Amino acid sequence: MSTPTVFPSTARNQPFPEWMRSVQARVQATLARCLPPAESIPGRLHQAMRYTTLNGGKRVRPLLAFAAGELTAAPAERLEIVASVVELIHSYSLVHDDLPCMDDDVLRRGRPTCHVEYDEATALLVGDSLQSLAFELLAREDFGASSRQLEMVRLLARASGSCGMAGGQSIDLESVGRNLNQPELELMHALKTGALIRAAVLLGALCGSALSVPERESLDRFAKRAGLLFQVVDDILDCTASTATLGKTAGKDAAAEKPTYVSLLGIERARELAADLRTQALASLAIFTERGQRLVDLTDFITQRKF
Amino acid sequence: MSTPTVFPSTARNQPFPEWMRSVQARVQATLARCLPPAESIPGRLHQAMRYTTLNGGKRVRPLLAFAAGELTAAPAERLEIVASVVELIHSYSLVHDDLPCMDDDVLRRGRPTCHVEYDEATALLVGDSLQSLAFELLAREDFGASSRQLEMVRLLARASGSCGMAGGQSIDLESVGRNLNQPELELMHALKTGALIRAAVLLGALCGSALSVPERESLDRFAKRAGLLFQVVDDILDCTASTATLGKTAGKDAAAEKPTYVSLLGIERARELAADLRTQALASLAIFTERGQRLVDLTDFITQRKF
Repeated sequence: MSTPTVFPSTARNQPFPEWMRSVQARVQATLARCLPPAESIPGRLHQAMRYTTLNGGKRVRPLLAFAAGELTAAPAERLEIVASVVELIHSYSLVHDDLPCMDDDVLRRGRPTCHVEYDEATALLVGDSLQSLAFELLAREDFGASSRQLEMVRLLARASGSCGMAGGQSIDLESVGRNLNQPELELMHALKTGALIRAAVLLGALCGSALSVPERESLDRFAKRAGLLFQVVDDILDCTASTATLGKTAGKDAAAEKPTYVSLLGIERARELAADLRTQALASLAIFTERGQRLVDLTDFITQRKF
Repeated sequence: MSTPTVFPSTARNQPFPEWMRSVQARVQATLARCLPPAESIPGRLHQAMRYTTLNGGKRVRPLLAFAAGELTAAPAERLEIVASVVELIHSYSLVHDDLPCMDDDVLRRGRPTCHVEYDEATALLVGDSLQSLAFELLAREDFGASSRQLEMVRLLARASGSCGMAGGQSIDLESVGRNLNQPELELMHALKTGALIRAAVLLGALCGSALSVPERESLDRFAKRAGLLFQVVDDILDCTASTATLGKTAGKDAAAEKPTYVSLLGIERARELAADLRTQALASLAIFTERGQRLVDLTDFITQRKF
């Protein structure tokens, strides 16, 4: 982290698909470097942590962090860290959510889930350890932004905990077999997936120069809309795409009698909601003019994704 | 946290049992204040977090943090935070360790374990959320030691993760039914219980004025010996005390064919080892003269405890 460079310093005009692949490759390399080596003690735990985290995935949260970093000319070395940190938290949540006492799922990103490939106790410890590692990385001495890092730790901890992601999962569990209305469903998702997506966006922006108050408010509005958009699209895909395409079990929410945007609104109105949320998200980016182009492209990617 | 005071400002000469009770009460009050209210959404999760954390226990780690804080004249308000933070990590580890896929225990501190009182999914989320809360508190804006706080976050994260507490638990799982030799057993415990006990001591000291290099090295040596001592005594109590006295299921390690100091050395040699570790721990405190008295008293408490 010795020579900070703005990312992608020579690639501001890189086409979106290339930019996306380059960010994904950077995050993969950072995660591979920051996770404990597979052969270090305890080997089984470290292998399982790597199995879980280094298996691809779309890396939507890291992409959001990098795209938000373009708003503030953030150094690539910092973006690599915050993007990886958010992905570690996301990976931990998937491992725990897949456990038999939660969603009891056997397939994730086209491979057996962690507790199927290893065992339940190991999967539990994998999640716990990935969470600790995220905070360890975010507090790194060589990050070079100590005055901001504590704010980042607070932001990530709140987004992850009982008033964020874990809290959303708890509401989700309580809602099985019940009818939620739209505001209740929105609260659940604002916590369950929205909080970490918002954290990814804000952490990315915090890696660079300061935003003005109206800019920060606009970015926060964007992040909340983008998080909800992501979830609505997820609900649509869950009941329209195949297991092979998704890399995870399709139709699971309906089978588990979980309330979704599709079960609440029907597929057509869910699609209209997604279109509305996309429009609102893009409107929040207007203040950033061309600096916001990556976030605009990413919003379209989230809307149009097929898996 | 507006008016920092050295703790206990008027109570340096307080008898040890009184000091212990006052620290326990302070930590209890801090935890009660910092945990989300039981009635806040999601209610079931927040109730379970409070059920798990506010049920007493000896608070050995908070006591160590406060006693170490006396070495550096640390403000009570900071010690309350780091003591609570370490207890939150300890509580999360107990909730996860008690789950059916781990130690499958039904009794903790004389009450049903979290997954028995609530359910497994809630217990999983309680542990996850307590870990997040610990990092959130340690990064508090009003802690008033921002230059040190990042170091504290790193220290706590390493002590908790796959190269600390969670790693020790993983080695523990792999060792069931196997014969470990004494160095292997020592590594397991250095991680499983030692790492967090060491963190409690070092975090407490970091709340105050800086230690010299030899002082810090001595304190680290003390912390490692004290952690091992705690575990050896734990192993002895597990096979000599009753379930009623312990407040948790006695004789569990032997029943699960887990290697312990008693299974490795026999009860008499395990007692000798405890006596040796106490001597070594106390020798490491000599450099602190009378400032180390609370740590001396606490070492004796750890050695002589009956539960």
